[in-house]
Formats: sequence, structure tokens, C-alpha cells
Amino acid sequence: MRVASTIPEMKCLRREISGTLGFVPTMGYLHEGHLSLVRQARAENSVVVASIFVNPTQFGPKEDFKTYPRDPKHDLALLESEKTDIVFMPSDVEMYPQGYSSWVTVENITEMLEGSCRPGHFKGVTTVVAKLFNIVEPNKAYFGQKDFQQATVIRKMVIDLNMNLEIVVAPTIREKNGLAMSSRNAYLNPQERQAAAVLYQALTQAQQIRRKGQKDAEYIRREMYTLIGREPLAKIEYISIADAVTLEELATIDRPAVASLAVRFGKTRLIDNVILE
Amino acid sequence: MRVASTIPEMKCLRREISGTLGFVPTMGYLHEGHLSLVRQARAENSVVVASIFVNPTQFGPKEDFKTYPRDPKHDLALLESEKTDIVFMPSDVEMYPQGYSSWVTVENITEMLEGSCRPGHFKGVTTVVAKLFNIVEPNKAYFGQKDFQQATVIRKMVIDLNMNLEIVVAPTIREKNGLAMSSRNAYLNPQERQAAAVLYQALTQAQQIRRKGQKDAEYIRREMYTLIGREPLAKIEYISIADAVTLEELATIDRPAVASLAVRFGKTRLIDNVILE
Repeated sequence: MRVASTIPEMKCLRREISGTLGFVPTMGYLHEGHLSLVRQARAENSVVVASIFVNPTQFGPKEDFKTYPRDPKHDLALLESEKTDIVFMPSDVEMYPQGYSSWVTVENITEMLEGSCRPGHFKGVTTVVAKLFNIVEPNKAYFGQKDFQQATVIRKMVIDLNMNLEIVVAPTIREKNGLAMSSRNAYLNPQERQAAAVLYQALTQAQQIRRKGQKDAEYIRREMYTLIGREPLAKIEYISIADAVTLEELATIDRPAVASLAVRFGKTRLIDNVILE
Repeated sequence: MRVASTIPEMKCLRREISGTLGFVPTMGYLHEGHLSLVRQARAENSVVVASIFVNPTQFGPKEDFKTYPRDPKHDLALLESEKTDIVFMPSDVEMYPQGYSSWVTVENITEMLEGSCRPGHFKGVTTVVAKLFNIVEPNKAYFGQKDFQQATVIRKMVIDLNMNLEIVVAPTIREKNGLAMSSRNAYLNPQERQAAAVLYQALTQAQQIRRKGQKDAEYIRREMYTLIGREPLAKIEYISIADAVTLEELATIDRPAVASLAVRFGKTRLIDNVILE
């Protein structure tokens, strides 16, 4: 496994590669969710590249950029054990040198949900992902469904800007109690971790109600509010039932939809979602 | 010479190419300025691709998008005679399909000069150029120095977003009277065309004053205002002496600088510039 810490180094390694390249961009502190993406990339490509970069531009000024969990040594060991070929691990200044001033933005699907709670978040995400795509030049890039809106936004960017790769979105990996794997789960104390199981309970309940034929989105949202509202440690930021493509809130579920939520447990902000068929 | 009118067609042709690709993006209505870029691309690359696309997103609502001169048949004949291999000539809807919503922006060097007279102009330019670069995947792309700020902005975008190509900026080609070649010169009546020679006179005067050792930028700007002000058909929009890299207006010329201007003759808006050494 090779580790590149500069952009020229990574571009140089890229030029030596023939065959298809599968890319897993991460912010490190890897868990089974990331590793499942690496395994899928490994199965589908000649070469696998992962990146570890806690992207400062996607954090708001009051968010957890400085305290975001980091453990590069452990990450590299995990990636090596999954037969990753190359890890790209740049510094902040390598990605955003003095005077940096170019941005990629996607409109219309970035203002709601995560975008409304985290203004500027997706501008940081699309910009760093566009940069990483230009540096790594993957044939396929792998993202987790847990960040559903992020995957939707990145897919839109790739289509609109005619980028030459395929975006693969892989299923959310969960703890035994249903909690979606996330690096931020490290912030939870044991009580909060247990309480956070209510998120997936609410999402699966939404799926069940929908499968029984319920089309009234507001009815399902209210059921979810009620269930999560019973958990005293949970502070709801949003509960959404939206068009799975445009992310517009639905009144009637008459097309592919996604139920998603953001809920705080203490200082920890968790997100999760399921598709409603 | 092959002509591609859809993005998949162009990407398909691209995949068949080995060797280096030189790209000349244009808005058509080609003149010697464009052709000099094609010749340089021809000399420096295995394959030459030109594009013809009058990009709607870089025109303001009151600008000349609808009346911008177009002559695709003549353009294709000229490109063929210059041994262009492929011409990419997409429709508006091919480049901006319904629901299009992704943008590339460069901050800090797009607010002044052309940006201040044409708000949103550079957002359209950087977006379409990023799209064209992803579609054509050139090794080198050629731009004319006449659009100095545009070339500077595109170069900044390429560096910041880590795009995999080199930007080549080639000298402005001029009519015998010094007027910089431009598709918009077609708008000028004979009197205006003659009067517009004053722009290059003012720019060469600025160079001469600078070469004599004058470092006071405001002195040179005033000389330029005076000379152009004597021409009754000329309406000055701006006259600038700016840092050639940051495009910030200079008080003292103590670094590489560019003298640039935008002046209207009747309904026609002309721009031009020279480097001050």
C-alpha cells in the first residue's frame, strides 16, 4: 500500500495505473461503513484508492472540525488489511493553499435538510469532492447511503458538470441495535448510544406504515415525531419525507421517497434515512 | 474533420484518441484570433478539438446573447482548412438540460473589471469551461490574451480545482489599425471601427510611458482617459492598471501589471489590454 500526502505525488501514482480505479473518499476514523465501501471497490476494480481528509470547508464555524475524531495510524492499518492500493492523505494547506478561491456549488437540492441546518456545508463537500475526483481520476467513486443527501448532491454535480465517473451508493451499515455507523458515534456516551437506536426504529416504522399502503406523508412524519419524542435524550432537528430525487418535501407519497432525519443526543448530531418504496 | 453535437458523441470520439489533445473553446463567428489559437494547438498536439458554443449563462439578461453573430457553416469551413480534427458543437439544451443546477465559481478575481460591468458573467464562463474540459479532456487548452481576465480566472480555476490540463494564453491578434480581433467587431459601423483604433493607441501609449520609467499608475490611467476621451464616439466603462495576477488596481507599478479597458462605441462594447513590463 502506498501513501501519498501531496497532490503531485498522488497524480504521479495515478499515471502509472492501468485498468479501472475505484475510489473511496473518507474523513478517516474508519468504521465498518467505510470498509464495506472499500470491499465493494476492491471487488469491482483493478485498483482501489482511499482518501483520508477531514475537509475544513464543509464544517460551519461552530461545528466540530477541530474535535472531529482522527486516528490515521489505525485507519492505515484497516485500509491495508482491506487490500487498498493507495491512500491519499493530504494536509489542509495542500488542498486549500493560501489564496484558494474556487468553488463548486449545486443549487436547489442543497438548501433543505442538511443544507438548512448546516449552511455552506454542501459547498464544501462538492468542492472537495470535485478536487479529489480531479486528483484521483476514478472510474467509480463509492459513497454510503447514510449520507443520502450528500450522495444525491454529488451525483447531480457529476451529471451537470459532465464528470467522467460513476457514483456508487452502498447500503448503510448498522450496529446491532440499528444505529447507523458513523465516526461521530464516538462522541456518544453509553446511554446516548442506546437511546439513539430509536432513530432506526422510527425509520423502519415509517417503512412499515408505508408498506401497509399509507400515502399521507404528514401522517408518517407525525408517527416518527411521536416515537422519537418519547426518548428524553433525543432532540429532533428535522424529520423529512421527501422526493428521493428532488428532495422536496412530499404531502402524498406518490413517487420514490426517502424518510430522513437529523437528531441530537447531547452534543452529538446524528443523521439517518431509509428509502420508502 | 468530425463534428460532434452531443456530449456522449464527443466523449466517444475522445476515447479513441491517443497522443496529446489541444482544445480551442470558442463561441464561433471565427476570426484570425481564433485561427491563431487553432494553429498553435495544431503545432503542439497530436489531435486538435475546437468547440463552438454561444454560452447563454455568461450573458446578462440585457446583453447580446440573442444577437451574438453566428455563422456555423463558415466556422466549420475555416476549422477544416486549419486541419482541426474534431469540432464539438452542442445545443443549449445539451449543455444545460432542464433542471441544470451546478456551478463553478472563482472568487476574488471575478468581482472587478469585466465582473463589475457584467455581474454573473464569469460564473457562466467558469461553469461552461469546466464542463467543456470534462467533456473534451484536453491536455492543453488555448485562450486569447484579449480576454485577459477570463484567461486569469480560468487558470485560477484549473489550479484551485486541480484540473489535469495546461492553460495556454496566446497573443491578441489585431487589425491593421490595431483594433483587437473580436466577433463583436461585426457590430461596428465603418466610423466606429475606425474610431475604435484609439483603444490600442491608448494601450501602447501606456506601455511607452511605463517604459520611460513612470511608476505612477494614476498618471498613466489619466493619460489614457485623455486620449480616449478625445474620441467622440467612445464611451469609457473602465480603464484599469492592475496587478497582473490578483487584478487589484495599483497605485504604484511595482510588479507585473496589465493595462486594460472596456469602451463602448454605439451599442458595441469592446475590451482590450496590454501587459506593462
